[in-house]
Amino acid sequence: MEFCNRPIASRSRFSEVAQSRCHCRKGHLGECEEFPFLAHLRVVNRQLAEKIKRDATMTTGAAWKSTDAGPNRILRWVMELSDEQLLDYGIVMSQLKPGVVAKLREKAADYDSCILVAAKLTWLAYQMENAPKPPIDIQDYLEELFGPMIEGSTVCVICRLPLDYNLFSAAARGKAAIETCHKNPRMHNPDNVGFGHRECNIAQGAKSLSEFYDWIDDILSRVDENEL
Amino acid sequence: MEFCNRPIASRSRFSEVAQSRCHCRKGHLGECEEFPFLAHLRVVNRQLAEKIKRDATMTTGAAWKSTDAGPNRILRWVMELSDEQLLDYGIVMSQLKPGVVAKLREKAADYDSCILVAAKLTWLAYQMENAPKPPIDIQDYLEELFGPMIEGSTVCVICRLPLDYNLFSAAARGKAAIETCHKNPRMHNPDNVGFGHRECNIAQGAKSLSEFYDWIDDILSRVDENEL
Repeated sequence: MEFCNRPIASRSRFSEVAQSRCHCRKGHLGECEEFPFLAHLRVVNRQLAEKIKRDATMTTGAAWKSTDAGPNRILRWVMELSDEQLLDYGIVMSQLKPGVVAKLREKAADYDSCILVAAKLTWLAYQMENAPKPPIDIQDYLEELFGPMIEGSTVCVICRLPLDYNLFSAAARGKAAIETCHKNPRMHNPDNVGFGHRECNIAQGAKSLSEFYDWIDDILSRVDENEL
Repeated sequence: MEFCNRPIASRSRFSEVAQSRCHCRKGHLGECEEFPFLAHLRVVNRQLAEKIKRDATMTTGAAWKSTDAGPNRILRWVMELSDEQLLDYGIVMSQLKPGVVAKLREKAADYDSCILVAAKLTWLAYQMENAPKPPIDIQDYLEELFGPMIEGSTVCVICRLPLDYNLFSAAARGKAAIETCHKNPRMHNPDNVGFGHRECNIAQGAKSLSEFYDWIDDILSRVDENEL
């Protein structure tokens, strides 16, 4: 699909790092929008629309903001700047613990990839069991990007069980039951990103999905004999 | 083994909940000690001796202390008291989030079980690859409780790979590489407790070990065909 790509005004102090652009189809009518595919979810499930935008465009960073732990969330493409460039934005990487720096840096991604990740997550959310139906223009848009949408076909990236849309609003101990997952935690692009159960995502940890499957396969090979 | 069991003076405000007792052999010479089996580790690896005592006797609770999150660590046997009894110690369970209460309560254990868990963990630590040799009196004591000690025989409770004693001092992002693990997270007794890799313990989560093995077996059954 060819996007409109007209610049969108932004008050963000990071707008010189990556200019916000319009992702409506080229030649569209009406106002320019950065995330036109989220227009419907923004109305019927605002929390989910914000989650998709946030997970697609922001690093996770530390659980809380502090000098040691660093900014708690930051735009992924800002993390592509050098330590020196980040100083101009008041972000002093050298003051952060090495583990925090590594965690932030491995979440870096370019602007275009982040937009496509948001669209992919939207495409996946609409294909969950019990998801609302998208308006036809949004369905066409998403299908052109990622292929036909099949009701109830979205499964957890990790355990492969169907995901129920209602799990987005279920939370245990304050943590959402569905998280955005990466097949390879160090790559943020539409092919590599999906939704998964929180417990599955935690179990996968820093491993790639294939490393995770190998790992649990090895565990079972050592347990099998006496205990399964 | 019959313990000496003489009361040991304590300044703890919880000493009326469970009186500290001597766990030297009955009829021993020398001073009474609550954790005589840790005497050697306390000298050669003080951090580990403290970890064993702490994990055996304290709940984990929240990551930080707050009104919401509750006390960050508390004696496991204190968590056997009723909400009403806890008020006398300034612990107001009704002010805590339900999730925190559940987490604290499921870590409750009686005093005698906690002492035996500490002894079991000590027995396991000495049997790790590259562990120091225990003095003969401590070896005899631990072997009488839990059976013969075999060099290098301690494996991760979860993944069953041998554990190296040196991992106790290895830490990634400030977290120890070896954690105290429970085959069933809701039971704190010597049969149910052991050491494991941090990543394995995280993957197991709130599941019992057999639930965990079933879970990963199911995952692999759905993945197998196309991707392993």
